[in-house]
Amino acid sequence: MCPAPLHETVPATTPAASLVFTTVLSHGPLTRAEVARRTSLSPAAVTKAVRPLMEGGYLVEDLDEGARPAIGRPANLVRVDGGRALFIGVKVTGDEIIGVLTDLCCRIRVARHMPLTGREPAVVLPALIAMVQELLVEADGFGVRVCGLGIAVSGDVDRLDGVVRYSPFLDWRDVPLADVAGTATGLPVTVDNDVRALTVAEQWFGAGVGLSDFALVTVGAGIGCGLVVHGRVVSGAHGVAGEIGHLSIDPLGPRCHCGNQGCVEGIASDPAILREVRAATGRPLASVAEALELARGGDPSAREVYARAGEAIGRAIGSVVNVLGPERVIISGEGLAAYDLFAEDIRTAFVRSAFGTAARCDLMTRPLPFEEWARGAAATAIQSFIGPHTYQD
Amino acid sequence: MCPAPLHETVPATTPAASLVFTTVLSHGPLTRAEVARRTSLSPAAVTKAVRPLMEGGYLVEDLDEGARPAIGRPANLVRVDGGRALFIGVKVTGDEIIGVLTDLCCRIRVARHMPLTGREPAVVLPALIAMVQELLVEADGFGVRVCGLGIAVSGDVDRLDGVVRYSPFLDWRDVPLADVAGTATGLPVTVDNDVRALTVAEQWFGAGVGLSDFALVTVGAGIGCGLVVHGRVVSGAHGVAGEIGHLSIDPLGPRCHCGNQGCVEGIASDPAILREVRAATGRPLASVAEALELARGGDPSAREVYARAGEAIGRAIGSVVNVLGPERVIISGEGLAAYDLFAEDIRTAFVRSAFGTAARCDLMTRPLPFEEWARGAAATAIQSFIGPHTYQD
Ligand SMILES: [Zn+2]
Ligand SMILES: [Zn+2]
Repeated sequence: MCPAPLHETVPATTPAASLVFTTVLSHGPLTRAEVARRTSLSPAAVTKAVRPLMEGGYLVEDLDEGARPAIGRPANLVRVDGGRALFIGVKVTGDEIIGVLTDLCCRIRVARHMPLTGREPAVVLPALIAMVQELLVEADGFGVRVCGLGIAVSGDVDRLDGVVRYSPFLDWRDVPLADVAGTATGLPVTVDNDVRALTVAEQWFGAGVGLSDFALVTVGAGIGCGLVVHGRVVSGAHGVAGEIGHLSIDPLGPRCHCGNQGCVEGIASDPAILREVRAATGRPLASVAEALELARGGDPSAREVYARAGEAIGRAIGSVVNVLGPERVIISGEGLAAYDLFAEDIRTAFVRSAFGTAARCDLMTRPLPFEEWARGAAATAIQSFIGPHTYQD
Repeated sequence: MCPAPLHETVPATTPAASLVFTTVLSHGPLTRAEVARRTSLSPAAVTKAVRPLMEGGYLVEDLDEGARPAIGRPANLVRVDGGRALFIGVKVTGDEIIGVLTDLCCRIRVARHMPLTGREPAVVLPALIAMVQELLVEADGFGVRVCGLGIAVSGDVDRLDGVVRYSPFLDWRDVPLADVAGTATGLPVTVDNDVRALTVAEQWFGAGVGLSDFALVTVGAGIGCGLVVHGRVVSGAHGVAGEIGHLSIDPLGPRCHCGNQGCVEGIASDPAILREVRAATGRPLASVAEALELARGGDPSAREVYARAGEAIGRAIGSVVNVLGPERVIISGEGLAAYDLFAEDIRTAFVRSAFGTAARCDLMTRPLPFEEWARGAAATAIQSFIGPHTYQD
C-alpha cells in the first residue's frame, strides 16, 4: 500500500514538515540540533515537525555511534528512509523520453530511454504512458509502491493545473498533461517546466546545496534558466520565470519565434548556431555536431559563430547577475559540448556586463545528463508528495 | 527613554515577531486570526510573537466595537502604536538632502529639504548630520525619543557594514556612512541603497502591499529597480541587485561609466537624454527640463530621443519580467515628468519583449516624491529596530 501523501495526513504541520524533510534530504543525516540551526526553527518546532514524518516512516533516527560524546546523551541522527516510497520522473526532449525510477531520497534505481518518432502530443503522450507502465513493472521488483509521477517539459508550464500552456520547442499549446497521464497511470502527477525541475534537483543534491540564491543556466536546444531566490525556486506570478533565452540583447539581431528581435536563444541555441554556421560557411551541415567539428577543425567563420554565441550567453548571465545578484551561476545543458569553443567568450562578456561587486558571483559549469533532468522531474513529484506548500507560502 | 530594540529584548522570537509586526503595520488593525492567516503562522505562534510586542508597547489591542459578533467573544483588533517611537529617514540626492521624522507607523510628522553645494563626502556628511540634528530638535516636541536613523544613497551599499561601497552618481567609494553618522548623532544607523529603501516603503504601505512578487522601477538621474521575491526585498549575495540600468541592450549603444556598452542608463537616464537631445538638435540646453520642453513643443529629434529612451525602459522592464515574472511593475522616479512623451514606447517595448504569459504582469506608474524615498529610509531604520532578521533567514 502506498502511504498517504504527507500533506493529506498532517496538513497543519506541512510547511515546517516540508522544510525539515528537504533539509534532512539535502544535508542529512543530521542531529535535531543541526536541523533546527539549518531551518531557523526552534528545537520544539523541529520536534513537532519530525514526529509525523517519523510516524509515517519518511524519516528515521539512528544512534550516531561515531559521534558519541564523552558526557551526556549521544546525539541521534535523523535521515530520510529512501526505501519508504518510489517515484517516477520523466523528461521529454524533442528526440526521446527519458524516465527514471527513484526512491524517496531521489536516488535513481532504474533509468530508461525511449526514442520518439515525432513531437506532437498524439505521439509523445502514448510513448510517455508506455514508459511509465514499463517503470511501474520494474517497481514491482522493489516491493514498494510508486507514489508519484513527475513530468518535465520545456516551455510555459502551469504546475498548479498540470497544463503545458505553451512549449515552443515541442509546439504544444494547452496540453492537459497531468490529467491525461494521471488517468492513464493512476498516479498523482506533477508537471513542471524542465529547467525548474532540474533546479530543484540541483538545490537538493547538486551545486545549489546550501545556497539561498543561485541560478542554473542551461544551453542547448534552447537557453533556459532556473532561479532560486531566498531559498525557493522562482515560478513567476503567471508561470513564466527565468526566460533568459528571450532577453533581447541586440535590436538588430535575428527575429525570434517569440516575436522579439535579437533574443539570446536566436543567437546561442544549438539550432541558431547550426543556422549561422551554415550561412557563414555555405556548407549544407546536417547537425550541430558537424558545425562543432568544423569549428574545432579551425574554420574561422564557424569559430566566429561560436564566439558570438558565447558572448550572448555571457551577456545573458550578466543580466541575471545584475538583476538578482546570486551567489553562483551553474552552466549546464547539452550545449556544454561546445564549451571549449566559447568558454572564454562567456566569461569575458559576463565580466564586462556584471555591475560592480555582482561580478564576484561564482560561475561554474556542470554537465548534467538527461537522466539528471528526469531525476529533477522525480524531485518535483517528491515535493508534491511531501507537501503542496512551501515554507511561508 | 528610548525603548530597547526589540531584537535585543526578545532575540529568540525575532523572526516571527518581525513578520507579525510588519504584517500588522501593512494591513492592520487586524484580528489575531487575520494575523495568523496572513503570516501562515499557527494561532499559538501568533500569540507567542504578539506577547513581547505588546509588552514592549509596539502593538496595542483594541476592542473592535463595530465587529461585535452576535455570539461569542468580540474580536479584538491588533495595531501598531505609532506614538511609541520616532525615526529619522534621510535620502541623499545630487542637489539636496531630504529628511523626514516619522513615527513607528512610518507616518511622516516633519519633512525638511536642505540644498547641497557639492556631492563629495566632505560636503554631504556635515550637511546630513546638521539635518539630523535639526530633526532631533523637532522630535523633542513630541516627547518621544528617536530610536533609529535610516540613510538612503544610490549605488552599491553594504547595509550590514553600513558602508557605501560605490555610488557612481555621487562619486563615492567606500564611505563608512553608518559609522560617521552614528558617532555624530548617537543613533543606531541603517544605510541602504535608495531604491531598495523605497521598495520597503512600497511593500509596507504602497502599491506593493499584499504582493509577494513585484518590481519597482525608478527612472530619472539613474535607472534603478527594487525587487520583492517570495515576499522579501532582494539584496543580492554581494550587495548588488536590481541593476537594470546596466543591462546592456544594444551592442552598438553608447559606452557606459560601468565599462559596458549600450546600457539602459546610457540611453534612458535624464543625463543621457539631455546629452542626446543636445547632440540631435545642436542646441546648448542647460537642463533636462529644457529638453523636455523642446520635445513637448514638437521638436522631432527631441521626441525621437524620448521615444528611444522609452523603448529602452520598456525593454529593461521586459527583461525583469522575463527573468522573475512579478505580479506588478511599479514605475516611478523623477523621470516620470516625461511620461507623456514615452509612455507608449515603454508599453510597446514591454509587450514585445515579455515572453508568453509574463506579459500579463500589471504595469503601473506612481509618482513618489523624494519625501517618500526618505520615508523608505525611515522604514529601513524601523526594520532594523524591530529585528535584524527577516523571517526564515
Ligand atoms: Zn525570443
Ligand atoms: Zn552601465
